[in-house]
Amino acid sequence: MTTSLAQPGTGRTPPTQVPDALARASSLVVPALDAAVERLDPSLHEPVRHHLAGGGKHVRAGLALIAAAAVGGTEGAAVPGAVAVELVHNYSLLHDDIIDGDRERRHRPTVWAQFGEGVAIVAGDALAALAIQVLLDAPTPARMEAARRLADANQAMISGQSADMAFEARDRVTVEECLAMERGKTGALLSAACAIGAVLGGADGAAAEALGEYGEHLGIAFQAVDDLLGVWGDPTSTGKPVGADLLARKKTLPVALALGRGGALADELVSIFSRAPDQTEIERTTRLLERAGVRDAVAAIADEHLLQGLGALDRVVLADKPKEELLEVARYVTARDR
Amino acid sequence: MTTSLAQPGTGRTPPTQVPDALARASSLVVPALDAAVERLDPSLHEPVRHHLAGGGKHVRAGLALIAAAAVGGTEGAAVPGAVAVELVHNYSLLHDDIIDGDRERRHRPTVWAQFGEGVAIVAGDALAALAIQVLLDAPTPARMEAARRLADANQAMISGQSADMAFEARDRVTVEECLAMERGKTGALLSAACAIGAVLGGADGAAAEALGEYGEHLGIAFQAVDDLLGVWGDPTSTGKPVGADLLARKKTLPVALALGRGGALADELVSIFSRAPDQTEIERTTRLLERAGVRDAVAAIADEHLLQGLGALDRVVLADKPKEELLEVARYVTARDR
Repeated sequence: MTTSLAQPGTGRTPPTQVPDALARASSLVVPALDAAVERLDPSLHEPVRHHLAGGGKHVRAGLALIAAAAVGGTEGAAVPGAVAVELVHNYSLLHDDIIDGDRERRHRPTVWAQFGEGVAIVAGDALAALAIQVLLDAPTPARMEAARRLADANQAMISGQSADMAFEARDRVTVEECLAMERGKTGALLSAACAIGAVLGGADGAAAEALGEYGEHLGIAFQAVDDLLGVWGDPTSTGKPVGADLLARKKTLPVALALGRGGALADELVSIFSRAPDQTEIERTTRLLERAGVRDAVAAIADEHLLQGLGALDRVVLADKPKEELLEVARYVTARDR
Repeated sequence: MTTSLAQPGTGRTPPTQVPDALARASSLVVPALDAAVERLDPSLHEPVRHHLAGGGKHVRAGLALIAAAAVGGTEGAAVPGAVAVELVHNYSLLHDDIIDGDRERRHRPTVWAQFGEGVAIVAGDALAALAIQVLLDAPTPARMEAARRLADANQAMISGQSADMAFEARDRVTVEECLAMERGKTGALLSAACAIGAVLGGADGAAAEALGEYGEHLGIAFQAVDDLLGVWGDPTSTGKPVGADLLARKKTLPVALALGRGGALADELVSIFSRAPDQTEIERTTRLLERAGVRDAVAAIADEHLLQGLGALDRVVLADKPKEELLEVARYVTARDR
């Protein structure tokens, strides 16, 4: 079934319309998410609803539901897992926005900017606790295994975030370190979404592992594309200047790759990171990176992980339609014109 | 056995030496806590160890171990629960210190002050996630029930913290609102410590409920004493000026009680809270509160909850020695010269 995937790396335009499976998942998960938020202290309803009203495509929730169906379960059985992973994702956004000092998300004020840092810290803590509450309320013995996977993924995500912060204080980061950070920061929760959905859908160990592996690779591929767009994204669609991540001196994959090659380009990067670079320097460095093949190398990493993720799906027997949907979601989240 | 309790409210000096049971608990729990911290991302070891090195008497951990023994279990069976409640307590301290802007705890720089806010947020998140990981690793089917109680207590604690923050923006708070806030902020986790210890020790439902109730009342009594010391504590032992909580305009029990009585004293409080009061005004208000009987009323609330907590223990059959230790810990944490 992998033949239905647009050939990676050929530059063929991938589909960017939200896949039906994700839209369907949102319609199941959003009411359950809203009901869960009702359980929070009333003083937290306004900030949490403000944040959730910003939207989001519920990719993690969708993956959980599709994974349950892929192993022969019902999507309904995975709803508590889907809600739980969305809650963990959103608590991390609330806290990351404080850490990064980001005042806007999806063209709206972030919670800390609108309600204060204290409220954003506590609201994040509340969503993290709620995730475990929702999961342990699931009417199935599999909730135990699901909760354990969620807690482990949360911890891995935190490790990734912490590593990312530690990179800021460093001159150099290797590609391996960068990939390990992205595996934690993005891969762990996407992996858990798939594995938890599978477990709640009644999967045996092998199917849950395979789906978890698909999710992890998908997360890394997604993050690699994100890194690519952070440097070469179209300013009219990203809303950010060319080379935005370089301007912010973020140690993402393009930077790690260039540093790993050494030579004049690596020296140039270390140099611009040691001062506050202006837009002209950034654009020049962006062109040098592209000419050195760094853009293609990042794209190749994304493609490689996408293929590995899809390969994991081929190791186990999955229901046809959900498997097709997993391919569709994979193409969607790694599309380069998002 | 309640006769062994120093009569509350008589002003008799309570024992303030750390009870043997807590010292014993620390010796069991600290190595397990250290081992759990090893599981965190290496970048978080230093800030977390810095925080934990500040000490603490492990009251919550001690209660979990004693509760397990009280229902006929071993203290060892409750160690994962004891570690988990300590982790939740400490994550809340890390985040509260940011929210309150406190730069020192136990005469050492707080984590945010020493390592930055981002690190303190992430380190707190990591400890919260670790608590669930540790509990779900406990080699007993009771871990599920224990994890559920921990997640619920965490959420209740967050509600209390959130209510406390919301009080800051208000002129008036009722005694009921204040007690509900303190039940969440302090009572919930002490309650969970006891109930989780009981559950891991093999308790039936009734014993776990009774021990949980003891813990909740103990938490409220502890908090009431804390509020008392926040206004009338001896500056040489609290390290804070007379009326410190009034100076900080905190809406604790003494304030809620005085506001509830109305009249000139309530007006005076609203008035000093509407401006930045100086130390002379604070001392005058402190004397007025005392003359109006507010100090005694707070002490009576503490005593009432202490008695209710001890009463809960008498509803079920508990092993003699651990029960005696629970009484000892209750006297210790509600002592007014701490």
